[in-house]
Amino acid sequence: MTSQPLAAQVKTLDIFAAIADDLRQVEGAIEAALATPDEMLAEVSTHLLRAGGKRIRPALVLLTSKFPGASFDRVVPVAVAAELIHMATLVHDDVVDKAMVRRGLPTVNAKWSNQVSVLTGDYLFAKAFSILAETGKPRVLQMMADVVFEMSRGEIAQIASYFDADQTEEQYYERIAQKTGYLIAECCRLGAIVAGAEESQVQALYNYGMGVGLSFQIADDLLDYHGSAAKVGKPVCGDLKTGILTLPVIHALKHSDHAPELREIIATHAVSDTDIIRVKEILEAAGSFAYARAKADTHLAQAVAQLTHVHELATGAGLQALAEFVINRQF
Amino acid sequence: MTSQPLAAQVKTLDIFAAIADDLRQVEGAIEAALATPDEMLAEVSTHLLRAGGKRIRPALVLLTSKFPGASFDRVVPVAVAAELIHMATLVHDDVVDKAMVRRGLPTVNAKWSNQVSVLTGDYLFAKAFSILAETGKPRVLQMMADVVFEMSRGEIAQIASYFDADQTEEQYYERIAQKTGYLIAECCRLGAIVAGAEESQVQALYNYGMGVGLSFQIADDLLDYHGSAAKVGKPVCGDLKTGILTLPVIHALKHSDHAPELREIIATHAVSDTDIIRVKEILEAAGSFAYARAKADTHLAQAVAQLTHVHELATGAGLQALAEFVINRQF
Repeated sequence: MTSQPLAAQVKTLDIFAAIADDLRQVEGAIEAALATPDEMLAEVSTHLLRAGGKRIRPALVLLTSKFPGASFDRVVPVAVAAELIHMATLVHDDVVDKAMVRRGLPTVNAKWSNQVSVLTGDYLFAKAFSILAETGKPRVLQMMADVVFEMSRGEIAQIASYFDADQTEEQYYERIAQKTGYLIAECCRLGAIVAGAEESQVQALYNYGMGVGLSFQIADDLLDYHGSAAKVGKPVCGDLKTGILTLPVIHALKHSDHAPELREIIATHAVSDTDIIRVKEILEAAGSFAYARAKADTHLAQAVAQLTHVHELATGAGLQALAEFVINRQF
Repeated sequence: MTSQPLAAQVKTLDIFAAIADDLRQVEGAIEAALATPDEMLAEVSTHLLRAGGKRIRPALVLLTSKFPGASFDRVVPVAVAAELIHMATLVHDDVVDKAMVRRGLPTVNAKWSNQVSVLTGDYLFAKAFSILAETGKPRVLQMMADVVFEMSRGEIAQIASYFDADQTEEQYYERIAQKTGYLIAECCRLGAIVAGAEESQVQALYNYGMGVGLSFQIADDLLDYHGSAAKVGKPVCGDLKTGILTLPVIHALKHSDHAPELREIIATHAVSDTDIIRVKEILEAAGSFAYARAKADTHLAQAVAQLTHVHELATGAGLQALAEFVINRQF
């Protein structure tokens, strides 16, 4: 892995080949949306753009909008707003998680302050909704506002669940749907809606997005245990140290012979690096990583199966490839 | 002053007599908007509702909507959203300002954490925009999104200006318009718009709101120097300690014989209680408090003068009384 920004790398990925020109236009629109005469805000925006990102959400808006006769111009504001909302949540999440590094660069809270992060996130949310209003569709705005609402609910539920060894697998799925699933699903639904797709295909694409989102988040939670810090661009095993119990831990707490030991480690509310090594042994022995991986695969398969219902869409193969990329990524 | 919540006190204020029933309905709608099955969010929401507030923004939406034939039901979502947005900015501002007390109660960041504050603010913003979408008017959503955009710009500009003794009075006015003026002006404009008022009256009410907002913020900045902690419900002279230079200081830096001494105190970036006493002497001697007070009065007079253009509105007297209350308040 080089120090080249991820955004630049992504543009060369085959899965985006069919929409490479569109994505470049969206990228230009994102940069235009972030242009500002305010010195400090301009520095923060430049930092965020430089940090890049995989632009998966705009790509999903674009890929799900390729219905016959759809207008590209009406799709752009939705794609831009989706990425701005994603950026806003990342900036706020880094305050919440006290994260110092993201995508190999210092976070806004690390480079500036929590204060600047809070306000930059608000600025990005507001810009996103202002741009969404350009669609002239209150329903689109409401859907996206409801997604942000669910995302903040999910993040607060996550804080409330720190180090809670009694949480259920169902609560985990609800939380990751709120954190990740709804936004990705909404990107897919809104791409189809602004493209004028019929209701059954809109719904199939929403279901596709939810499957991709859940699969993505389970895979992301696994990466926290198995990724290398260099590839992931942030410290590993941060979740457990923070108190966030993800699917493998929740599985082991129920099924491992060493569940009491695991529960004891969690109850300390201070998980050391030595503890982490032991936790990983317990999870491996209980098949908890394999279990989570299988769940991610199942959600992905369910997502891809939805694509058979979307016969009018020219980009079905691209959506399938994106789904597979999302779960197989190493960063 | 008793320990009774401010919200309960406000309802007895004469200036709201004409809209007391409406305000009670809006208060009910705010409570309904904040109802949630999520335990932690419910606790935070209850805390915010208990802390109360003067509900000036919903009152302005209501007062500016009393045109002949206007529908009350269409006004409620705007009034509710305005207060939710105000609450969201307060919760985020308390993180930014590291404030521990507001309205005599601990802030959300003090009682819970910065993390919970960030997410609660996002939750309130999202709820506000979801409710605004019920108006079915993308323009209304865009106007409010642009206000939130300007508010975050203003707050970031304020951080960038901490302890900057070279900032101008013009920069101060721009900042307080962004922080306070635009939202109050927009409440007045949107009240009139959803009531179907004609353009000239809409504009007059916007100008009224901007005058009230600027006047309000100048008066609020003066209260930071002259209010008692018990009445204001938060520590006094917090602005200067944080690095926020308000109108009296900016005036004295330009006009006081002791400007170099004042500049030196500010340059320490650590203003002590002894410094504060000296700063207040310098500002008093330079007539800087009187200057700021006169500016607040001027903006108020300009605001009230706008009301002569709003001949169809039944609540002109109420708007005048509210304007006077805002600047004369001791809390």
